[in-house]
Amino acid sequence: MADKFMSMKNLGFTLHSRNTRYKVAIPDYLNEHTPKTIDRVFAAAFDLGKKVLHPMFEEMDRFPPQLVDGRVCVHKGVRPMLETLGQDGWIAATFPETWEGENMPSSLLLCINFIFATANYSASVYAGLTMGAAKLILSFGSDKLQNTYLPPLLAGKWQGTMALTEPEAGTSLGDLCTQAVPLEQGPSEKGQYKIFGEKIFISAGDHDGVDNVVHLILARIKGAPAGVKGISLFVVPKFRPDAQGNLVENDVVVTQVFHKLGYRGAPITGIRLGEKDNCIGYLVGQEHKGLAYMFQMMNNARLEVGMGATAIATAAYHSALDYCRTRVQGRPVTAPKNAAPIPIIGHADVRRMLLFQRSVAEGALALILQCGMYEDILAKDPGQTDCHLLLELLTPVAKTFPSEMGILSTSAAIQCFGGYGYCDDFPVEQHFRDMRIHTIHEGTTGIQAMDLLGRKLVMENGRALGLLKQEMEAAMAAASLHPESARGLEEMARDLAHGMALLEKTLQTLGRLAMEKGPEAYLADASLFLEMFGILVIAWQWLTMADGALSALEQENLKKKDTLFYEGKLCVARYFFAYELPKMQGLAKTLGDSAQMTLTLQDAWFTD
Amino acid sequence: MADKFMSMKNLGFTLHSRNTRYKVAIPDYLNEHTPKTIDRVFAAAFDLGKKVLHPMFEEMDRFPPQLVDGRVCVHKGVRPMLETLGQDGWIAATFPETWEGENMPSSLLLCINFIFATANYSASVYAGLTMGAAKLILSFGSDKLQNTYLPPLLAGKWQGTMALTEPEAGTSLGDLCTQAVPLEQGPSEKGQYKIFGEKIFISAGDHDGVDNVVHLILARIKGAPAGVKGISLFVVPKFRPDAQGNLVENDVVVTQVFHKLGYRGAPITGIRLGEKDNCIGYLVGQEHKGLAYMFQMMNNARLEVGMGATAIATAAYHSALDYCRTRVQGRPVTAPKNAAPIPIIGHADVRRMLLFQRSVAEGALALILQCGMYEDILAKDPGQTDCHLLLELLTPVAKTFPSEMGILSTSAAIQCFGGYGYCDDFPVEQHFRDMRIHTIHEGTTGIQAMDLLGRKLVMENGRALGLLKQEMEAAMAAASLHPESARGLEEMARDLAHGMALLEKTLQTLGRLAMEKGPEAYLADASLFLEMFGILVIAWQWLTMADGALSALEQENLKKKDTLFYEGKLCVARYFFAYELPKMQGLAKTLGDSAQMTLTLQDAWFTD
Repeated sequence: MADKFMSMKNLGFTLHSRNTRYKVAIPDYLNEHTPKTIDRVFAAAFDLGKKVLHPMFEEMDRFPPQLVDGRVCVHKGVRPMLETLGQDGWIAATFPETWEGENMPSSLLLCINFIFATANYSASVYAGLTMGAAKLILSFGSDKLQNTYLPPLLAGKWQGTMALTEPEAGTSLGDLCTQAVPLEQGPSEKGQYKIFGEKIFISAGDHDGVDNVVHLILARIKGAPAGVKGISLFVVPKFRPDAQGNLVENDVVVTQVFHKLGYRGAPITGIRLGEKDNCIGYLVGQEHKGLAYMFQMMNNARLEVGMGATAIATAAYHSALDYCRTRVQGRPVTAPKNAAPIPIIGHADVRRMLLFQRSVAEGALALILQCGMYEDILAKDPGQTDCHLLLELLTPVAKTFPSEMGILSTSAAIQCFGGYGYCDDFPVEQHFRDMRIHTIHEGTTGIQAMDLLGRKLVMENGRALGLLKQEMEAAMAAASLHPESARGLEEMARDLAHGMALLEKTLQTLGRLAMEKGPEAYLADASLFLEMFGILVIAWQWLTMADGALSALEQENLKKKDTLFYEGKLCVARYFFAYELPKMQGLAKTLGDSAQMTLTLQDAWFTD
Repeated sequence: MADKFMSMKNLGFTLHSRNTRYKVAIPDYLNEHTPKTIDRVFAAAFDLGKKVLHPMFEEMDRFPPQLVDGRVCVHKGVRPMLETLGQDGWIAATFPETWEGENMPSSLLLCINFIFATANYSASVYAGLTMGAAKLILSFGSDKLQNTYLPPLLAGKWQGTMALTEPEAGTSLGDLCTQAVPLEQGPSEKGQYKIFGEKIFISAGDHDGVDNVVHLILARIKGAPAGVKGISLFVVPKFRPDAQGNLVENDVVVTQVFHKLGYRGAPITGIRLGEKDNCIGYLVGQEHKGLAYMFQMMNNARLEVGMGATAIATAAYHSALDYCRTRVQGRPVTAPKNAAPIPIIGHADVRRMLLFQRSVAEGALALILQCGMYEDILAKDPGQTDCHLLLELLTPVAKTFPSEMGILSTSAAIQCFGGYGYCDDFPVEQHFRDMRIHTIHEGTTGIQAMDLLGRKLVMENGRALGLLKQEMEAAMAAASLHPESARGLEEMARDLAHGMALLEKTLQTLGRLAMEKGPEAYLADASLFLEMFGILVIAWQWLTMADGALSALEQENLKKKDTLFYEGKLCVARYFFAYELPKMQGLAKTLGDSAQMTLTLQDAWFTD
């Protein structure tokens, strides 16, 4: 198996070449982290990834979690990994100092999670889920909840989860029916409820690598309104502290561990709550606001899903690259028959597949770090509401582009290996399987598409798209500043402008459709619009990277290795504009011509 | 698990609505098989598929073949299955009566293999491989070879294989180095050679479901020229008949069984030949002609790979359709919040995913049966050389379109199920895994692309494309014959013509490139050209199906169920033209603008 699963150089380059018009106001959005301190943090994360997470990448897949006598047994490496991540402060890193955190900016956390996920995606989610749950408790929980749950969670001794889905309510969260019945209210029981229900598809929903599991669950308080407005958020631990502070069983039973295509190192479980009428949940924040709370974290979870997909695509790319450089087979088309065979990286089609993978993985990384930058600027100055709008607009893309394109990208990695790629001697077949979850969890692609077209593009009278356009124009302007030979950047800027114009035209068409035929027609092909928008957005990111690479190349006394790296960046940018951006054209045509046939067809037409 | 894995009605419709200008000359290309006799044959195959192959679909995946003490143990159902397929005449069906066959036309064999592969792809390959090996012996082997090997092969008692690949020679067959050394030539040893070498990736390369395994292997006779021109074809059995007719060990050792992403019900093995200097191979046909012989069968094997992919996509589609009709979740966009949830087939995005899957699976089926028709016309009248050219031209598409699009199509099937699709409670995750081999085996997509652009389009001065254009024009003319409302067929015909014009323009661009910059530049983006060509070809097939469906709808007294089926067909055709055909535009742009960057980039640019 190839040792290399990511490029530290590329990560640093991508982080530092992110740019936005709003950076002017908040230059120190990375909280006084200098490139050098960042390097040190990343190097430490990489070290952990390499020594702790990566060595169990295959094993965690081959020996997935088992449910034995009600207990979920995971790989024996999970417990020491979580202890290390807790002790060394990784789980608490973004928390305030009160909780022994260091207020690490989102951008850096995203990078660290990227490093961990390239090493071993399944292993990386345990701590990520704990962070998410702990963040919810920090943001909305009472002091008591915080004091009880945050220390063991942040120490990696307890696992945090998010339990949303129910057997009959997945995408349609408003239909969930787990119930919360208030306890007889003594003063000590304030905010306590008996919980009854069933949840499924809970990542790390129980396992023997921790001493307790803390579920953040959505439930409906008895008598609450129907739909999404009647949902509240609860902490439901597997073991709850009794009056004496001892941990006692909380009537949370694991019903199953799902057997999955990939992502097999993490246990995805079903749980039943309150079977014996003895499951206590602790209300987080106010009644009926659960979904809003959850969504605050969901946006971040969606970026993390995009980052997970990006990481898997990255690791698969590095495996494929290594193989293509060492596997000798065939000759150039024009070589004499008796010429020696060459490494397959010399074949045009193989190079195309490598460029494709790189363009997806590195383009997605740039977009997610762009989102991280907006988050960090907002965190420093909540008055930067433009950044909030941009973040809202880009989140569905940052979640979906890597997830959808990652399927193709890991598939291309398999193709680079030929028959060997289909065998488990190499890691790419696992990457292909691990990848496939991402278009589903934390909101399917269809949901992201409705979110983009139905909410994000229309909020505040459609202001977000204008802001994005300004960002793109700033990038085009920067690209035009290079002296003499612009090495293709002018053409890229021009193509990006054309792409934006095509997108706007398509939106006008859809807008007319909305007026003439209503919202169903407007949204019918939302997934295609999201795909089209995603290509444009990633093209923008590639222009910014090409700009960064060219600026670097214009420096004097560049090391040879750095020159090669930046030339490569320029080449991948050109690839994206030549091979990927043109796909917008077909999508635009379909969005204009489809006549929304999916609305008028009859279900019975699927009869045979 | 959904019981339904294919539509007999659709199979019949697709077979009987195939059309070509050459059918006029050879109307009875199905060898006197009437629709009724065909129905009976298909019904019998379906019955076998349902009762014998389908019940072991999951088990064969969950308990893949194991190598135990040099013996490859497969599912216990394999032996009775092969015995049944032998006894009931399925393996011999296309053979002449001498071999107890019935001269079944290729079209019908393709349909039968389709039925078996929808039931259980892995199970279906055993007999298919035996047929292929037996066909080679029939076509090129001596009487003695035929008499020795055909009866037990066709009876399903022995397994046939094709052993081409070696560890260092996969795609690059000319580099294979398995050696054949002539035996001291007594009259009884004529055509016998000692074989030394190693072969890998042999489908059904050994197993305990048969009494013997007959490898058709490619090897180089000692002293033969280098490259593809020095390759000969041999029969190398696991057990060879000695002078007394007893079977004795032939020094063929199984080195490994590959552990694969999918397609796990069939053992893919490696073998070592002649370790003890005691492996005898029997020359098939003449020396040094092995690759040409193999390719005669390879063309058919490529159609069968396309059909396998089509079958898997079909089975996945039917699972998804069943789920989407029964899974209740969410409401129409404009429904009141308290409206009852609906089956998810009511959602536009879900319908789009179903239409996509159907357009791929049914479009691919049509193309492969179109190729089968050309084969059958040729078999009746070898003078129909146009049909040969068309078959040559279309084979790379018939292999690649279902294989590449099948990845997306089975992925869409998973998406229809949401989280459940990622779990092995439903068959679609297995379909997704089973599918992924098809862009690799029997020539990767990159190889098919070079074959199309570098050989098929230039042979006989490019005459094949002209013939295809005439076929398409005939289909457009037929589509224009419908009275009054043409139900979208006029637009489809027009779009098809535009697509052909775009393709021709792209070919002109590539032709100029070939003259100016040589063959490497011409071929650099061959894979994209194949993709573009594939979309056009499938659009043509959808036009023919729309034409067939509309003709049926114009009949009087149609049953309601039939009306729904034909309306559905028209709808999927419209889908393909609106959602898939426009993708040609982006591809054309890339093919014109890529500047063949994959040729000029430096490997070192992948450095970081």
